[in-house]
Amino acid sequence: MAIPATECIPLKIRGLFRFCYRTKLQKTWNIADRREFSCSAAKSYAARVVSGTAIARQIHKEIQASVEQLVGQGNRRPHLAVILVGDDPASRVYVRNKTRAASLLGISSSALLRPAGVTQAELLDLIDQMNRDWRVSGLLVQLPLPGHINERAVCNAIAPEKDVDGFHIVNIGKLVLDQRTMVPATPAAVWEIIQRTGIETVGKNVLVVGRSKNVGMPIAMLLHSDRNHERPGGDATVTIAHRCTPREQLTHHCRLADIVIAAAGVPQLITADMVKEGAVVIDVGINRIQESGSGRIRLVGDVDFEGVRQKAGFITPVPGGVGPVTIAMVMKNTVTAARNALAH
Amino acid sequence: MAIPATECIPLKIRGLFRFCYRTKLQKTWNIADRREFSCSAAKSYAARVVSGTAIARQIHKEIQASVEQLVGQGNRRPHLAVILVGDDPASRVYVRNKTRAASLLGISSSALLRPAGVTQAELLDLIDQMNRDWRVSGLLVQLPLPGHINERAVCNAIAPEKDVDGFHIVNIGKLVLDQRTMVPATPAAVWEIIQRTGIETVGKNVLVVGRSKNVGMPIAMLLHSDRNHERPGGDATVTIAHRCTPREQLTHHCRLADIVIAAAGVPQLITADMVKEGAVVIDVGINRIQESGSGRIRLVGDVDFEGVRQKAGFITPVPGGVGPVTIAMVMKNTVTAARNALAH
Repeated sequence: MAIPATECIPLKIRGLFRFCYRTKLQKTWNIADRREFSCSAAKSYAARVVSGTAIARQIHKEIQASVEQLVGQGNRRPHLAVILVGDDPASRVYVRNKTRAASLLGISSSALLRPAGVTQAELLDLIDQMNRDWRVSGLLVQLPLPGHINERAVCNAIAPEKDVDGFHIVNIGKLVLDQRTMVPATPAAVWEIIQRTGIETVGKNVLVVGRSKNVGMPIAMLLHSDRNHERPGGDATVTIAHRCTPREQLTHHCRLADIVIAAAGVPQLITADMVKEGAVVIDVGINRIQESGSGRIRLVGDVDFEGVRQKAGFITPVPGGVGPVTIAMVMKNTVTAARNALAH
Repeated sequence: MAIPATECIPLKIRGLFRFCYRTKLQKTWNIADRREFSCSAAKSYAARVVSGTAIARQIHKEIQASVEQLVGQGNRRPHLAVILVGDDPASRVYVRNKTRAASLLGISSSALLRPAGVTQAELLDLIDQMNRDWRVSGLLVQLPLPGHINERAVCNAIAPEKDVDGFHIVNIGKLVLDQRTMVPATPAAVWEIIQRTGIETVGKNVLVVGRSKNVGMPIAMLLHSDRNHERPGGDATVTIAHRCTPREQLTHHCRLADIVIAAAGVPQLITADMVKEGAVVIDVGINRIQESGSGRIRLVGDVDFEGVRQKAGFITPVPGGVGPVTIAMVMKNTVTAARNALAH
């Protein structure tokens, strides 16, 4: 089972290391200030559990500093507008998490709720208003949308410079051309976790399992591309696997991989026998499964956490891994949007 | 050495097979009408040499029929405008090949020549004129451009619906989102060769060597994506390797690959020891090398053709492989642009 962030006990240590998380298994992982880090483990064969919660906290501090600097220079506070259509419970949670994170970081926000029956024209009209509202720095429409609305048309209607989800077609084009742009939050989170944990990517084998347009595909784009381009890439050899990849081929590729990024939405897809000793395993999956006994709904990733942690070098838990960093990246994109608006 | 198309002797056969090419090595490869095909080889260990020239001829027939249908319906003949800046000899050859191919297929064309010293503003102005000229169906600017001109700005200036090279940022965005769009000609050529040779891609391991934005990256996008999407993909497991991939890792991935697409621009990069028995090897490389004895310039690909053909199942030669199909795809895009203009 994943180690939820709440099971980590933050300790304050003077000097280089600012956060230290002690898990139930007595393994410690220290995040240093910025990009330096150090790890130690009680058992050498067990993976370091990378706390996304801790990394998110680090990014939050940087965002807060950035917001205060902006405001201190006499600018308006960055503002995030979130449009929510219908009343899907998961979407409501996501929107609440975003507006809550915004308020914690000094970013003002508004949640614009529309009924599931809203027409596409009405939604596009609302987006148009937000695009033209100079008080709005960043704008996102929570996906998925009801079936009668064309999601692509909605994503393309958001002004690219306010598009904090990075789903506008021009921003996607820029992403795959390695130009500076709004990187979608989940791929950006995977990138930050890799960078801030000091994991080397150049010339490494990366396996991305899943090819969704918002997660798997852009992660593959970030990691295979050139580190010297305008938007630096990981310079890794990247394999994109997906549901058409035969199981034994998935295993072959997984065993070759120095870094495995699981984003398929399939619980227990990546098991210990598939993973190379010491590999980095980043679990992007968010699957809701019902426990057989209690009937309770539990969040799990795509990785058999308990098995794989015995073999991997680094592993991210679910929850408490990629998730919190993803929300932090939406906030970072909002501040970037606010800064870009000032520059133009 | 590659088998140039001129060394193939076309034979007319009645019935199913319309073209038959007999090479010096007495191997025969028959291209059937459309997508059916049959192969036979005198030596079972030798690859079938896939003649791009023959496939291009097949596509040419289809384009000619399509053009005549358009014209027969009372529409203007499709028109391709090619802008050439400076006097780079290779670019001149490419432009000449395109305008020549156009005229053979019933597509009218114009080559607009500008000196190397043309300013970016002048070039953008010319593009704007062509965009607004209703007589122009398709427009391309031959790359590379002189250093003082921003190629990206030029590509983005071409009206997306006339962008027969598929380099406009919106067309690239559409490509990676699996939407119907102008696919850049070289990736489109690789796709056509695979489809028309009847090579299965679903669930296969594909290695793309090279990550250029006009060739390697879009090939990876076409081949890994979903065959049921608006723009069908290959549903293959795709690995993207490049100059940061260590040699021994390139070999590992190559030996796993059912299909190897070499687009690195490195002569002799793919050798027989790296290739799986029976693999498909598509050589996109075009390298000009000087022969040691005669000093003559010779075109070679990225694959050790003579070595690899002893082990592969299919192989494309250079010249006479991807090249002619690439030019055919520019023509096909021009006709598509003309048809799209009618629909709007």
